[in-house]
Amino acid sequence: MEVVEVLHMNGGIGHTSYANNSLLQQNVILRAKPITDEAIRSLYANLNPKNICIADLGCSSGPNTFLAVSNLVKAVENQRKKLGRRQSPEFQIYLNDLPSNDFNTIFRSLPKHQEDFRREMGDGFGVPFFNAVAGSFYGRLFPTDSLHFVHSSFTLHWLSQVPQGLEGNKGNICMATTSPLNVIKAYYNQFNNDFSIFLKCRSKELVKGGKMVLTIMGRKNDNPTFHLMELLARALNDLVAEGFVEEEKLNSFNTPVYTPSLAEVKSLVENDGSFTIECLETFQIHWTGDEYDNDDNIIGNNNNAAYKVARGLRAVIEPVLVSHFGEGIIEEVFQRYRKMIADSMSREKTEYTNFVISLIKK
Amino acid sequence: MEVVEVLHMNGGIGHTSYANNSLLQQNVILRAKPITDEAIRSLYANLNPKNICIADLGCSSGPNTFLAVSNLVKAVENQRKKLGRRQSPEFQIYLNDLPSNDFNTIFRSLPKHQEDFRREMGDGFGVPFFNAVAGSFYGRLFPTDSLHFVHSSFTLHWLSQVPQGLEGNKGNICMATTSPLNVIKAYYNQFNNDFSIFLKCRSKELVKGGKMVLTIMGRKNDNPTFHLMELLARALNDLVAEGFVEEEKLNSFNTPVYTPSLAEVKSLVENDGSFTIECLETFQIHWTGDEYDNDDNIIGNNNNAAYKVARGLRAVIEPVLVSHFGEGIIEEVFQRYRKMIADSMSREKTEYTNFVISLIKK
Repeated sequence: MEVVEVLHMNGGIGHTSYANNSLLQQNVILRAKPITDEAIRSLYANLNPKNICIADLGCSSGPNTFLAVSNLVKAVENQRKKLGRRQSPEFQIYLNDLPSNDFNTIFRSLPKHQEDFRREMGDGFGVPFFNAVAGSFYGRLFPTDSLHFVHSSFTLHWLSQVPQGLEGNKGNICMATTSPLNVIKAYYNQFNNDFSIFLKCRSKELVKGGKMVLTIMGRKNDNPTFHLMELLARALNDLVAEGFVEEEKLNSFNTPVYTPSLAEVKSLVENDGSFTIECLETFQIHWTGDEYDNDDNIIGNNNNAAYKVARGLRAVIEPVLVSHFGEGIIEEVFQRYRKMIADSMSREKTEYTNFVISLIKK
Repeated sequence: MEVVEVLHMNGGIGHTSYANNSLLQQNVILRAKPITDEAIRSLYANLNPKNICIADLGCSSGPNTFLAVSNLVKAVENQRKKLGRRQSPEFQIYLNDLPSNDFNTIFRSLPKHQEDFRREMGDGFGVPFFNAVAGSFYGRLFPTDSLHFVHSSFTLHWLSQVPQGLEGNKGNICMATTSPLNVIKAYYNQFNNDFSIFLKCRSKELVKGGKMVLTIMGRKNDNPTFHLMELLARALNDLVAEGFVEEEKLNSFNTPVYTPSLAEVKSLVENDGSFTIECLETFQIHWTGDEYDNDDNIIGNNNNAAYKVARGLRAVIEPVLVSHFGEGIIEEVFQRYRKMIADSMSREKTEYTNFVISLIKK
């Protein structure tokens, strides 16, 4: 499987589209907002560029595509007023994702977003210049010293490819509690390699003093598990048991997904050596993306919540599943998956761990 | 009709797509190539930028999208070798068209084009960084002083809107021999206004010494006619006569198209005052885009050629027709249109007049 060709969120704006199932990703962006805002505010205060170049890597296609960059532009404008600088900088914004991302939908909504900017920011503010950049962020995307700010949220758990050497990962679809050591190693090596290349490319593209804020879905401890993916594996195993899917077909399926630990991320940044870590925080977010109430319960009942979680994962993983298993099994898989999620949510605290890391280019 | 929303070439890669019916536009690019190449060669020799920023405005979606910019990159590389400069510059390329253009198809073919670059240019050459920019070129698209080179071929005859005040243009669909004076004036004023804004925006975006090469479809003399569009009007009038289309529906239809004279283009550039005209040439190209043989005949028979011409125009005008008349009439119109084209080709020299103008930003 060529990840570059297959991996993309569900396009369009329909029921199972990513655009309509991305509340979780939205809340991840909002949780990281204080750190992101502070990073770009201080960048603007210190470097004061006439034209700020901002890249959002893995922008997908949906409401979140413009959310992160809008917040960044507003943070700069607020800082400008606070500093009493008269002239707004120009903004050149690069929205990046893989070539299979639905850029047409982004562009068709662009006039509306530009109109929103005009209305919200008032007269005299130059509407940002938007560009789309199609390509893997595990490679160079921009000229040398051309960016001031890089943002990427909930993207770096996607590897550049399914690792080689996953023999013996029977019944699993990524690194899991029951994976043998060679599988754990292969996944770790792939992440190590990919994230190192990512840092190397960005360090070339960012100007000195430029900043990068990454929100990375990770794991809480060293236990190599990704609970939601293990449940998906169980749903697929059920289809094997019921004769819908051949066992061999499932055994040859692995996803290009890895959730690193905080120590792994930190050590790879330090090994790269081009960035100073300005800030590193961890936060948890419920599978649904919703807030907890005061009693630490998730709001709404489990069945609705499970439906939402299943749809959310479907919007991001369906193209990968379809390319391996075909379309026929999709409804069956996600029905079973939803029940497993509901069951899991009734028994344990079901949440993602995320790291927000703010870096300065040396 | 909002031109920004309706005007786009036929998308995809099917039978009536622009991608498969753009030989004419390809040959226009090739005819202008000596001037375009010379312009970017001297720009590179004089300014020697580490990162050359090139914009192609109205890039559409098809083989021509990459043709023009590939030629520019190759011209720079040849010049670099000739000058004995060791290091290739980096290339940042902006492909622009309206938001309704099919950018997804462009991006999906990008990996193949990047591979072609790698193979053709050899080791050590950094593959260009491609960006897509969606928006009207009758407005700002890029930050101040951010571009070195602007290219636009066969695009500026599209106006930003159907002019106001076209009363009395009965039976016509653009400026035509039988149009009353107010219609001719309204079309000229719209072009005047649009082209002036175009020049003003580009003069802000180009660096001092930056260059712009425009290939503009125009008219040979002051006679306000656009023969191919007049034939399309006749085909539509036939449908009115046969009762397929209401007369009022046709009378309220005008296209946002204007073919300027050479004197008009020159005078608007001089009035703007930000550019020096480096070179200005006129060339004719047959409606089919084909070369003439030695006897000044077009190669191939008229019926085939007319089919090609009709398909070529269909690929660019169909969305505009559909938005006004609906899909029902399309096949009928283009059947009649093809016959009229064949007839016209058998009686007269049927060709487009084009101006290539090479400008330097003062």
